[in-house]
Amino acid sequence: MKISIERGALLRAVGQAQSVVERRNTIPILANVLIEAEGDSARFRATDLDIEVVDRAAAQVERAGATTVSAITLHEIVRKLPDGALVQLTDDNAAGRLTVQAGRSNFSLATLPRDDFPVMASPDYTSNFAAPASVLRRLFDKSKFAISTEETRYYLNGVYMHVAQGEEGQVLRCVATDGHRLARVDAALPGGAETMPGVIVPRKTVGELRKLLEDDDMEIAVSVSETKVRFATPDITLTSKVIDGTFPDYTRVIPQDNARRLEVDAAEFARAVDRVATVSSERSRAVKMALDEDRLVLSVNAPDSGAAEEELAVAYGDERLEIGFNAKYLLEIASQVDRENAVFLFNNSGDPTLMREGNDTSAVYVVMPMRV
Amino acid sequence: MKISIERGALLRAVGQAQSVVERRNTIPILANVLIEAEGDSARFRATDLDIEVVDRAAAQVERAGATTVSAITLHEIVRKLPDGALVQLTDDNAAGRLTVQAGRSNFSLATLPRDDFPVMASPDYTSNFAAPASVLRRLFDKSKFAISTEETRYYLNGVYMHVAQGEEGQVLRCVATDGHRLARVDAALPGGAETMPGVIVPRKTVGELRKLLEDDDMEIAVSVSETKVRFATPDITLTSKVIDGTFPDYTRVIPQDNARRLEVDAAEFARAVDRVATVSSERSRAVKMALDEDRLVLSVNAPDSGAAEEELAVAYGDERLEIGFNAKYLLEIASQVDRENAVFLFNNSGDPTLMREGNDTSAVYVVMPMRV
Repeated sequence: MKISIERGALLRAVGQAQSVVERRNTIPILANVLIEAEGDSARFRATDLDIEVVDRAAAQVERAGATTVSAITLHEIVRKLPDGALVQLTDDNAAGRLTVQAGRSNFSLATLPRDDFPVMASPDYTSNFAAPASVLRRLFDKSKFAISTEETRYYLNGVYMHVAQGEEGQVLRCVATDGHRLARVDAALPGGAETMPGVIVPRKTVGELRKLLEDDDMEIAVSVSETKVRFATPDITLTSKVIDGTFPDYTRVIPQDNARRLEVDAAEFARAVDRVATVSSERSRAVKMALDEDRLVLSVNAPDSGAAEEELAVAYGDERLEIGFNAKYLLEIASQVDRENAVFLFNNSGDPTLMREGNDTSAVYVVMPMRV
Repeated sequence: MKISIERGALLRAVGQAQSVVERRNTIPILANVLIEAEGDSARFRATDLDIEVVDRAAAQVERAGATTVSAITLHEIVRKLPDGALVQLTDDNAAGRLTVQAGRSNFSLATLPRDDFPVMASPDYTSNFAAPASVLRRLFDKSKFAISTEETRYYLNGVYMHVAQGEEGQVLRCVATDGHRLARVDAALPGGAETMPGVIVPRKTVGELRKLLEDDDMEIAVSVSETKVRFATPDITLTSKVIDGTFPDYTRVIPQDNARRLEVDAAEFARAVDRVATVSSERSRAVKMALDEDRLVLSVNAPDSGAAEEELAVAYGDERLEIGFNAKYLLEIASQVDRENAVFLFNNSGDPTLMREGNDTSAVYVVMPMRV
């Protein structure tokens, strides 16, 4: 293999690869990126055996071929090369080395044989559809904060992407929950997604996917099978195993009849929650919300260190209510609100509370109260 | 005590205080800031028993008095209050609480009696002088990287500030070393400093001092005794114990007769060192410098992962020389060069090397070679 490639294109391709590579590997080849050069491009492939990313970049291929080299070292080198440099990668199979050359810099990196690199098998995908990057970004960005980190509840360690019945027909839906709070986000169902099996997309995959979704107008090709999910742009293909488990029936958790309605400026609410939570240093800080006619008093009481109280002008017309929540959970759901006021729907102080953006039901959040 | 104070002024004063406070305290009062209100200002005092900072801020004092409250909690609260807010601090001695009120936010924080707060004794200072912030900043910024972190060599855990004989008379000099590298930085001797005893300013004090030195034109009042050093602006006074030890005779370490002279663009040199060091993941990476007529080849050889080599056009007219250095040390001294080329003076591959900025001898660096 002998190729020349522009430093910026190489940096992007290797950057995506090295982020999939796990920092601690017991299998040496998994620390490497597989570089395959052919025609007028080079492909950079990396995997942790659960996720595989393939990134294609334009290259002048003088001699086709393939090799593998440390993804992290190659990324560090390319990152430190001057902008605009032309980088030459030359493989010396006999010596087991890849030469990286740019300007007056010369690097020689240890390689491992391409045949040892585990290329992920492609299943037959049950359904294929396309969705704009902006739509997928919203689905995952607004749900991922609720992903559970408890390893014993592995089936909650991801975002459940599936087809569901919304108020106005079928929707593409993402749900995540950790048992304390839940996010449910809907988008119009893309053509071709109707037959899609529901899949739990693992946390790490959601993180890697996010990097493909920066460009609003980019169409992302999505393929789904019972065991794998694939997201692709023209240059990058991200394939991931899905979590082998059953996502619990979340619909039972979403309250339907919560009647007490609070409407509040989300940003002002978040700042006030953040402030009152300051007085307690405990990890799970309970914030008490005391609601009365158009008036919300947020308070925290930490016997050792002090107390805090803040009053907000709100829209509330129901009976008096006192209810407590974990401050972190309140902050997280309040930060999901982009445009309008946050609307909270309460039942009473022991029941799950629903939050949404104005009257928009395409993204709803449920949070369990705490005793205060 | 009852005072009103503008949020920005309070944030600055409490910010300085909370940064001196140690995060883990076995003595509860040391987590607190002492607030003393009198006349038209309030003073905020914090200490870790080695360093004391007092920050004065303008305040409307309705009722003079003093109390102590958690520096970190107060800082967090003030930081989260809206910009421009007027903050009222009211002490309720009987209840042992300080009320912090701004807009519709109300906080009540636990206090500890002012009398329990350890106020640092002021010694008789041997000498007092003034120096512009920019001068002190240069002295400490260019030397502090060489401070040792080895606790057993406690007398190297700071910057040795003293009066020394420079080439053109007496200078104010800062020296730091960890045995592997050394920095010696001189400035014109301020009037009044002639009688100053040499003091070792501890690492943490250097860090806190740095915050007083942002404003170039500010005159800093410096007071020095055998046991303490004080730096003061009109609003902030930083007092610190100095390290009780003898700084070693560093002059023997600084080579006088190194004859082989290399001149190199410091930024280009640093980038090249950074790049070649990439191939080795070891903590103490040795970079080999091979010098020949106007030519420098930097190289790193890491048997496991690979090799790197980079050539630089330099000014060098002496005999061939090969010498190795710790990559991190080379990067650190190269980054001290602001304006001109870096000039290295070598003796041979086993001897300490001197580095300075052009022909400026007011800041020189010594670095020990490594066997390569």
